[in-house]
Amino acid sequence: MSDSPLQLGLIGAGRIGQVHAATITQRVERAALVAVADVNIGAAQACAARYRLSRAIGDPYELIADPRIQAVLICSSTDTHAPLIEAAAAAGKHIFCEKPIALDLDATRRALDAVARAGVKFQIGFNRRFDPSFSRARQAIVNGEIGEPHALHIISRDPEPPPPAYVAASGGLFLDMTIHDFDMARFLIGDEVEEVYAVGTARVDPAIGEAGDIDTAMVLLRFAGGAFGTIDNSRRAVYGYDQRVEVFGSLGAVNVSNNYPNNVVFSTAQGVCRDRPLHFFMQRYIESYQREVEAFIEAVLDDKPVAVSGQDGLAALLLALAAGRSLREGRPVRVREIM
Amino acid sequence: MSDSPLQLGLIGAGRIGQVHAATITQRVERAALVAVADVNIGAAQACAARYRLSRAIGDPYELIADPRIQAVLICSSTDTHAPLIEAAAAAGKHIFCEKPIALDLDATRRALDAVARAGVKFQIGFNRRFDPSFSRARQAIVNGEIGEPHALHIISRDPEPPPPAYVAASGGLFLDMTIHDFDMARFLIGDEVEEVYAVGTARVDPAIGEAGDIDTAMVLLRFAGGAFGTIDNSRRAVYGYDQRVEVFGSLGAVNVSNNYPNNVVFSTAQGVCRDRPLHFFMQRYIESYQREVEAFIEAVLDDKPVAVSGQDGLAALLLALAAGRSLREGRPVRVREIM
Amino acid sequence: MSDSPLQLGLIGAGRIGQVHAATITQRVERAALVAVADVNIGAAQACAARYRLSRAIGDPYELIADPRIQAVLICSSTDTHAPLIEAAAAAGKHIFCEKPIALDLDATRRALDAVARAGVKFQIGFNRRFDPSFSRARQAIVNGEIGEPHALHIISRDPEPPPPAYVAASGGLFLDMTIHDFDMARFLIGDEVEEVYAVGTARVDPAIGEAGDIDTAMVLLRFAGGAFGTIDNSRRAVYGYDQRVEVFGSLGAVNVSNNYPNNVVFSTAQGVCRDRPLHFFMQRYIESYQREVEAFIEAVLDDKPVAVSGQDGLAALLLALAAGRSLREGRPVRVREIM
Amino acid sequence: MSDSPLQLGLIGAGRIGQVHAATITQRVERAALVAVADVNIGAAQACAARYRLSRAIGDPYELIADPRIQAVLICSSTDTHAPLIEAAAAAGKHIFCEKPIALDLDATRRALDAVARAGVKFQIGFNRRFDPSFSRARQAIVNGEIGEPHALHIISRDPEPPPPAYVAASGGLFLDMTIHDFDMARFLIGDEVEEVYAVGTARVDPAIGEAGDIDTAMVLLRFAGGAFGTIDNSRRAVYGYDQRVEVFGSLGAVNVSNNYPNNVVFSTAQGVCRDRPLHFFMQRYIESYQREVEAFIEAVLDDKPVAVSGQDGLAALLLALAAGRSLREGRPVRVREIM
Repeated sequence: MSDSPLQLGLIGAGRIGQVHAATITQRVERAALVAVADVNIGAAQACAARYRLSRAIGDPYELIADPRIQAVLICSSTDTHAPLIEAAAAAGKHIFCEKPIALDLDATRRALDAVARAGVKFQIGFNRRFDPSFSRARQAIVNGEIGEPHALHIISRDPEPPPPAYVAASGGLFLDMTIHDFDMARFLIGDEVEEVYAVGTARVDPAIGEAGDIDTAMVLLRFAGGAFGTIDNSRRAVYGYDQRVEVFGSLGAVNVSNNYPNNVVFSTAQGVCRDRPLHFFMQRYIESYQREVEAFIEAVLDDKPVAVSGQDGLAALLLALAAGRSLREGRPVRVREIM
Repeated sequence: MSDSPLQLGLIGAGRIGQVHAATITQRVERAALVAVADVNIGAAQACAARYRLSRAIGDPYELIADPRIQAVLICSSTDTHAPLIEAAAAAGKHIFCEKPIALDLDATRRALDAVARAGVKFQIGFNRRFDPSFSRARQAIVNGEIGEPHALHIISRDPEPPPPAYVAASGGLFLDMTIHDFDMARFLIGDEVEEVYAVGTARVDPAIGEAGDIDTAMVLLRFAGGAFGTIDNSRRAVYGYDQRVEVFGSLGAVNVSNNYPNNVVFSTAQGVCRDRPLHFFMQRYIESYQREVEAFIEAVLDDKPVAVSGQDGLAALLLALAAGRSLREGRPVRVREIM
Repeated sequence: MSDSPLQLGLIGAGRIGQVHAATITQRVERAALVAVADVNIGAAQACAARYRLSRAIGDPYELIADPRIQAVLICSSTDTHAPLIEAAAAAGKHIFCEKPIALDLDATRRALDAVARAGVKFQIGFNRRFDPSFSRARQAIVNGEIGEPHALHIISRDPEPPPPAYVAASGGLFLDMTIHDFDMARFLIGDEVEEVYAVGTARVDPAIGEAGDIDTAMVLLRFAGGAFGTIDNSRRAVYGYDQRVEVFGSLGAVNVSNNYPNNVVFSTAQGVCRDRPLHFFMQRYIESYQREVEAFIEAVLDDKPVAVSGQDGLAALLLALAAGRSLREGRPVRVREIM
Repeated sequence: MSDSPLQLGLIGAGRIGQVHAATITQRVERAALVAVADVNIGAAQACAARYRLSRAIGDPYELIADPRIQAVLICSSTDTHAPLIEAAAAAGKHIFCEKPIALDLDATRRALDAVARAGVKFQIGFNRRFDPSFSRARQAIVNGEIGEPHALHIISRDPEPPPPAYVAASGGLFLDMTIHDFDMARFLIGDEVEEVYAVGTARVDPAIGEAGDIDTAMVLLRFAGGAFGTIDNSRRAVYGYDQRVEVFGSLGAVNVSNNYPNNVVFSTAQGVCRDRPLHFFMQRYIESYQREVEAFIEAVLDDKPVAVSGQDGLAALLLALAAGRSLREGRPVRVREIM
């Protein structure tokens, strides 16, 4: 176990990069944020100013070369993840990377090979595993509280669709949004998915359909151990961020409901009401972002296995690709068809 | 245990009388309703027609004299309860009587003395004890699931005030409405109340204030065993009938919430809502009316103690009278001051 | 509108037949139960005694021939439904028939043709449509409260598997159990299902697998209008009958949770708990059984369309058959492949 | 509005002092923590090290004298509050002070007089007003969503009693614990209490009774505007921190339930359960501590009225003293008897 704080470099000063900057500078004890890099140097400088970082850089590869830095957090755009992972691994840096590693299998595998060769720690940013409710649900399943899992339901709906430009670069619904749910499915059941059947359509936002993507989907999963699962995605739930799961097993069920901004119930002549759930992921998952970074820091400093591995990133990618093929071909697709 | 059905006579063909008529003729196996009496003979005849009873009478004392009848249900106006109890007891009939026995202590005691002399069964209509939720809460307390009771809260609010004519004959809020809550307090805690402090006002309906009554009250109770309790009454909750209790003890708490017409939750851009609770007692307590009559029939046929005794009726009356004096005198009143 | 009570005959004195007998004799105003028939004449006689019916018959066709009887309720075993429907229709009797009409398409169509030729009323016993919560949810959808439906989830789990003998004659999970959920899907969305993909396995009870049936299933539905749906079935939820639905739409969602025997919440050092949901359909759906019979009586007496038609029975059967084929062939099946 | 951060000094490095130190150094943008003072100089030094403060002092009056410091947070023991307030006011420092100002009326008034003469900002630490649920409830009342308030219930129960030494110096239950609830009552109803009736006993912990204090209490409040209220206190709820309120009015009710560590519901053969509420105030009210300090900083920098004034502190003290007299004398006490 190490006593000196882990020296971290942040790549990408966008929204999620700033979440991690705030966490590391304000809430974490065993790490220090040394530098931030962003190809938009202005964004890097603003971030450095806000969080009092000593260095702001325009070139992420320059940050990777900084010998003080022991580990990097890759929060830049998805297409840059794989090459940055390879460079950081070659430089012997431990790596925390936002999901996904890449939108295609080859780039993902090359990046993971580089990590394996370098022997560095690698954690993928499936933050929802660290949500207090989802992690408590998983713990109950591990404890055997619900026996053997038979069925899983994931409801995962955004409050509003992303802008068209985002959609175009996102890789599509399954790679951008459902990939979190594929990981959640594997995490909760503790088993691999063997077959995926996906249906989907664009009905929330015509611009998404015009971009060749879907905004509404339903996926049916078959796990190796025999459990079944469903994932329900929508890009627009008018009542706010809808993030629920249920796992049903031989001895019981666990059910996770939404988070709310307050616990006030209003009873009037119109009915019995409460305010809508928390609006979106920055509210709902704020605690999970902190906990995932703490877990990464602990894994590096105490040389323990990471909580979410590169293989987890690869497995979720395979499910997203299988779902895409299922949607295109109108049939259930076995995951090994993709590999 | 008797195999022949209990032969019952109903006195009073108003709303609650008809509830009992429906229960006995349609849902109960061990009793038969032989006759109905009402000083409004038309009401008696309509009731007899509706429930296919063989006899409708204008004079309740004539019903009491009917030798076929083994037990009577007294559902007429409050001022008639005590003399009818005395007559029925003298005739050797078992008695089920709606609350209260009388609005004053002397008449109540005379009626109970008559019952005691006759040795007949006597059950008072505190139906809420038979509500599935309240009886389950009581069972948990008896089982020791919450340890020793320390605190009690009763919320008891009507959806709308009664008409002025009803208020005038009701004996006032404490004798008409709170009396149910006084009984619930004794039932749940399983102990006697020693002291009552009551505050109240008329602010829901000016007509109630003009009639010298109150429509909003708060009562603080001290039990002999040391527990404290509160009762919150209002004649108008705009969201519907509000009937909740909570008992807190050394090992936990039980909490009873309202009953609803359905389990549908609506999530929209305005919030997360459900329909209002059941509107009033005829909806909320319908099951308890059946269960109290079944308990009475069983007590008579199987010669078992009644579930709610004349002493329970007397005790609740004492609390209502103590609350009235507390309100008038602006001080806590010990129950033994009333006796 | 007719003033004389509808003269009804009951065929089948088993569990569900007795539910209808109790409803008609005790809770319904506009109908009279004239006779009961059961091939087990002892069962017919016991039922007649219990509900004071004037006639108990061993031969259902004899009941159909009774000229006093205007309408029949067919509650006998599934294999007898179709021939009894044909006979009753030929005799000009209106018909209420428990689901399903038959286990195969030809018999179902012949029965419905007979009904059409005779011009009698025909209602199929999909009682869940009359459940207060499900009907309230449907009403909200009809009202446009959640906009255009996009997604549906039905959770439908029994507390315990049926005995092996029952399974053998049931037609299998999709025809026996899921058929209710197929109807609920069509009812809630108000649209036809075009494609079904079903997965299933026997893991709750080995005897069910040995009988060639499944006890755990997940079905994905595609509606003509573009909505998607899932159905989750299990023959054993250890915590009791689990009957929930959710419909998500462009303007919101409706969510129906389970029914409970009471509203008591227990807070102790171990957690915050309530008792399990109502155990099974006789508790959960008791109100819906009454309301469906009342609707049938009203449809006949007032000459209005029935609430659940023969076409509804046929449509649910088609979905069950499509699910069966999907399970056998491991692919999504379009419903028109079955027709 | 000022652009430079408010220069703050912290007096008292105990538990609540450290909460404020963390908030100011990590989560607040418009303030800087310059120094910490604690009569236990080791505690001051540890706090300074942990939050990287430039100065740790053993003498609080030395901190008050520091010319860089614009405002102080007084988090030391209760008996030091009043003299420190007077000294800080004399030095022209703005003051945030934990509740209560003092345990007696004279000291409280002298302190408030000093504040008034100096014209500095003074905020008292009734943090619960800033809890998201309670402030949302208050907002609904201000908005008129529930009409005119008629009744209030506050449940306020700790998970475990404090150590005997704490009790001895606390001023007793009403001054130490109920004082928060008295403030909440005034805050929610937006009106002054005119009369208090209090009952109480020691039954949770014999050591509390031996120290002459109580651990279980019930208080009935009468507001000037006619509303009634109750406060239920216990030093031990075995299921965790129990902090709920309900306000009932002419147009509806608001109800605030507890906060939980997660949203997982477990359904098993034993029942339907969730984990216990958050354990104590450091979990439940963590957000309110941040928001109250932000409000204070904003009041000073932007020269706005403070959210919780010295008069609020005085009013709550009066209610606590009235409750104490009511308990001793066994009668309702009018608050003006205390003044």
